[in-house]
Amino acid sequence: MKVCKFGGTSVASAEQIKKVANIVTADPSRKVVVVSAPGKRFSEDEKVTDLLIHLAEQALKGENTDWELEKVIDRYRLIATELDLSDDIVQIIEQDLRQRLDFDQNDAVLYMDNLKASGEDNNAKLIAAYFSHIGLEATYICPKEAGLLVTNRPERVQALPAGDERLAKLRDQPGIIVFPGFFGYTEDGTLRTFNRGGSDITGSLLAAATEAELYENFTDVDSVFAANPTIVDNPIAIDKMTYREMRELAYAGFSVFHDEALMPAFRRSVPVCIKNTNNPDAPGTMIVKERNHSTHPVIGIAADSGFSTLFVDKYLMNQEIGFGRRLLQILEEEEIPFEHTPSGIDNISVIIRSKFLTAHKEARIIQRVKEELNADDVHLHSDYSMIVLVGEGMRHATGLAARAASAIAHAGVSIQMINQGSSEVSLVFGVHQEDENKILKGLYEEFFQKSAVLR
Amino acid sequence: MKVCKFGGTSVASAEQIKKVANIVTADPSRKVVVVSAPGKRFSEDEKVTDLLIHLAEQALKGENTDWELEKVIDRYRLIATELDLSDDIVQIIEQDLRQRLDFDQNDAVLYMDNLKASGEDNNAKLIAAYFSHIGLEATYICPKEAGLLVTNRPERVQALPAGDERLAKLRDQPGIIVFPGFFGYTEDGTLRTFNRGGSDITGSLLAAATEAELYENFTDVDSVFAANPTIVDNPIAIDKMTYREMRELAYAGFSVFHDEALMPAFRRSVPVCIKNTNNPDAPGTMIVKERNHSTHPVIGIAADSGFSTLFVDKYLMNQEIGFGRRLLQILEEEEIPFEHTPSGIDNISVIIRSKFLTAHKEARIIQRVKEELNADDVHLHSDYSMIVLVGEGMRHATGLAARAASAIAHAGVSIQMINQGSSEVSLVFGVHQEDENKILKGLYEEFFQKSAVLR
Repeated sequence: MKVCKFGGTSVASAEQIKKVANIVTADPSRKVVVVSAPGKRFSEDEKVTDLLIHLAEQALKGENTDWELEKVIDRYRLIATELDLSDDIVQIIEQDLRQRLDFDQNDAVLYMDNLKASGEDNNAKLIAAYFSHIGLEATYICPKEAGLLVTNRPERVQALPAGDERLAKLRDQPGIIVFPGFFGYTEDGTLRTFNRGGSDITGSLLAAATEAELYENFTDVDSVFAANPTIVDNPIAIDKMTYREMRELAYAGFSVFHDEALMPAFRRSVPVCIKNTNNPDAPGTMIVKERNHSTHPVIGIAADSGFSTLFVDKYLMNQEIGFGRRLLQILEEEEIPFEHTPSGIDNISVIIRSKFLTAHKEARIIQRVKEELNADDVHLHSDYSMIVLVGEGMRHATGLAARAASAIAHAGVSIQMINQGSSEVSLVFGVHQEDENKILKGLYEEFFQKSAVLR
Repeated sequence: MKVCKFGGTSVASAEQIKKVANIVTADPSRKVVVVSAPGKRFSEDEKVTDLLIHLAEQALKGENTDWELEKVIDRYRLIATELDLSDDIVQIIEQDLRQRLDFDQNDAVLYMDNLKASGEDNNAKLIAAYFSHIGLEATYICPKEAGLLVTNRPERVQALPAGDERLAKLRDQPGIIVFPGFFGYTEDGTLRTFNRGGSDITGSLLAAATEAELYENFTDVDSVFAANPTIVDNPIAIDKMTYREMRELAYAGFSVFHDEALMPAFRRSVPVCIKNTNNPDAPGTMIVKERNHSTHPVIGIAADSGFSTLFVDKYLMNQEIGFGRRLLQILEEEEIPFEHTPSGIDNISVIIRSKFLTAHKEARIIQRVKEELNADDVHLHSDYSMIVLVGEGMRHATGLAARAASAIAHAGVSIQMINQGSSEVSLVFGVHQEDENKILKGLYEEFFQKSAVLR
């Protein structure tokens, strides 16, 4: 039994949904179908989720929502019409949206969640209707009925293992199950959404709970590439990689998969395959527990911009037990997570994602570090990028750091930071943002266009 | 005006003290002479400081101390006799030691400090007597009279700037001043010693307070070498380096200078020269504020063994604000300072000097991290070495990390950790201790025996 998840572009139009139906019918083991909200049909198109956010914002402001509501309904109506479905399904969707608009607005976050989640929920109803229409035995299942339990507020939304037993029963349900991605319910019945891109998590959770033989994640690319194809010309496709590799790549800027989405599948050892809805015969990229990494110690190279460095210098810092801890505590109190902390004898740098900083927070952090820690010198620099080499073979490949650093040197660029030594599958270089693309190309050439032999 | 400091081997015997007198008389600007306790005359010899420690231990145990006391006095008597001094100075020393032995034993640390400090103190008296004997105008000065003020217990002993004004008056004192290294007095008159090797600090403090033109540190080597001469064959001598370079090298295992000793001189921009008492015509190594680093981006390579790694893994660690801080807090509560903290998405390693760990502390740390931080995996590995490349030019030399990592790869060794990105003058590689010497040789060859051109 397989769980298939179809992303936004895969279910953006009638034409795409027909492809989905073909894919599902081509393999009888494709039983659970998790769907996103309709995504973009062309690059300037609007995602239904974005339309829903505008709708919710309008409603929360107490303004008239007719126009925004109609825009959402129109998208479904167009799909339904082109799929030859009766207007019944559009009426069901319209009624659902009107009910959600009337929802209690006291908690704006929950109100927003509820409207956003309708994108996936109504698309699942529509797709189930289409499957039935073409003669498939298919049922829309609501995550509430199925038992997709999530944590209560104010905790970060995460699935609760308590729901697994009920979700496992989806196996026994006759026919195809069409399941909306992106949201679950707390024990007391409150709808909460996963982070955006969270349909991947829903698919992964269901694959894990039903102990599927495979979790197929359908998107709009043939496979995951070894480097960003908008920077590197025709990067090679990755045919197989491990969960850890995928997680490192996703965290460091690969946009195919959401960072945490794989974990439920990973924990139950369900293999994952990333495939293309528009080219389902392509083998795709398999994500598995282990791979033979002797030939390719590096599987991919990720790059991500938007990092800042907080530099702190204080004479005899290294003898002051607790200095590093107190520095991190200030950041914690300012609610700033950190990525890396390279250190010297008298100085320490903290690498932070710039999105967590504001001018106000920056000024306050600098002031606090100066005053509370008596630092001699404190400053914040932005516009750093992190380039991450990922591969299970890295730990044991002698000379890999040398090859990487040499490739960067050949690109004529200085390395600002190197972090190696904890993760077994990644090697991180901090560089100036302006050098990012040049380095990515140089590293790609070194690890994917040359022989893998140590120079 | 210059401040000269003579280390233990430079004042270990009459013969050596005659060399000191020649050095001092050769340059009339050598006004302040800081001396250590008599050191080893040959490799199996005992330092007077060690004899004094035994003496103090014996006294603290309440045992008879005649034999131990006689051993100390004998060393001074031998020197005095060979210098043709009368027995007066030996009697002064004996009387001083007997007074110290009668000191209040309630605080064993202060008792020990007092006896240890006598090594420098009595040697200064002896050397001043010798200088007078040969017709020099020379005076022994006690740090208490001179105003060498240090912090009170339980604070770590450090010099207080409040003493500087009085110390500056040493300039106006007629003739040569012979000043014992290694100790100072708190405001209430309690003697406290610097860390061992602390005579370097005394010299540095006096050079700073008197605004000397030069602080000459006389030892038993012609200069500082670019790498440990017991591992690397005939390493090159360093003719000039910066304070920051010296401090990094000292911290990472170079034994010539105590880590913090330079700072007082550094803060007042007094240049330092390391010279050889046995070969005072050799130019020595100058330590200055700035140097031209375009030709030699790397000035030296240090290696130090005895490090352990605490590895902690926890899924989604990177999203848990405060994890790193709480880990460091546990170490802080166990009074363990740390060196580096490389990190991955879900894991962090803390590099610790093994000397701070005991089997008991290790077990407790592992248990606490598991329980208090809910870590998935925690373990401690020992037997790591840190190899540190030091040089002011490092920050701006493109390709330096590449050259270093390549040299290590050529040695056939895997790098366990790289820390670059905070210090502007150092690049740290963590390696298995067994590979340390091989890597040091390889790096020395790369940076000092090849052309400095980027390969």
